[in-house]
Amino acid sequence: MKVYNFEKGAAPVNTDEMYMKEAYKLAQKAYEEDEVPIGAIIVSQGKIIGKGYNLTERLNDVTAHAEMQAFTAAANFLGGKYLKDCTLYVTVEPCVMCAGASYWTQISRIVYGAKDDKRGYSAISSHIIHPKTEIVGGVMESECAELMKRFFKSKR
Amino acid sequence: MKVYNFEKGAAPVNTDEMYMKEAYKLAQKAYEEDEVPIGAIIVSQGKIIGKGYNLTERLNDVTAHAEMQAFTAAANFLGGKYLKDCTLYVTVEPCVMCAGASYWTQISRIVYGAKDDKRGYSAISSHIIHPKTEIVGGVMESECAELMKRFFKSKR
Repeated sequence: MKVYNFEKGAAPVNTDEMYMKEAYKLAQKAYEEDEVPIGAIIVSQGKIIGKGYNLTERLNDVTAHAEMQAFTAAANFLGGKYLKDCTLYVTVEPCVMCAGASYWTQISRIVYGAKDDKRGYSAISSHIIHPKTEIVGGVMESECAELMKRFFKSKR
Repeated sequence: MKVYNFEKGAAPVNTDEMYMKEAYKLAQKAYEEDEVPIGAIIVSQGKIIGKGYNLTERLNDVTAHAEMQAFTAAANFLGGKYLKDCTLYVTVEPCVMCAGASYWTQISRIVYGAKDDKRGYSAISSHIIHPKTEIVGGVMESECAELMKRFFKSKR
């Protein structure tokens, strides 16, 4: 688990982008393993407490999305199933399943990179998200989208 | 894994109800373990190839719904992530997360017992379900609903 310490007087940092970079590294890992390149981390009080990247092919399991693994890992770390003071960073807008899982966790924030017009939860309904969850989209959008495009192009 | 053999000339059986009874037994198991009493099985060609019951409390994990475990088990059994010729039997209408997972599996049929007006996927949108998935609700409805009611009453 990595802890970021911000020294007093240090240059201001875009924290969301910094954490998204960590999620992006996991997405790259998925890409290298020939998986749909999506990565996710969960952050609580400046600490990464859960990680995941898409493993649906390796595990032969459609539920093995990056976010699902990160939720499970974070809950294990905290020893409780709610992620009320946590932020999910994920490189692509969550699908309905993952957004539905986020509802149950009551997570405080979801920050995503690229929008998924086809399979993103918002294509169905924004009400899938818990009313207490804040959503921020478009962080490192072009890099996250580019990685997905490159992957699907290589599959054609 | 249990295999049902139907002898020629045997009395006609309501197959959906027969399988729902198996899911119900798992829901009872959840009840006994102080979990929200929902059980699920997945059937392919007359064979139960996946089972699950709600374990969110024991595992401290909101993703540990009966259906999610049954999907993972069935995919493991088949060695492939799609459940195209399978039926999910679940005692309560799936939530958004589980319905979203069923979308990815492209499962042929979902048969559920009790409707969940609050947390069932259909309260959000019926489009969460894959267009190829047939839905049958209300099988053993009263028993499945009764078990849930009894559980939540005991929690008050």
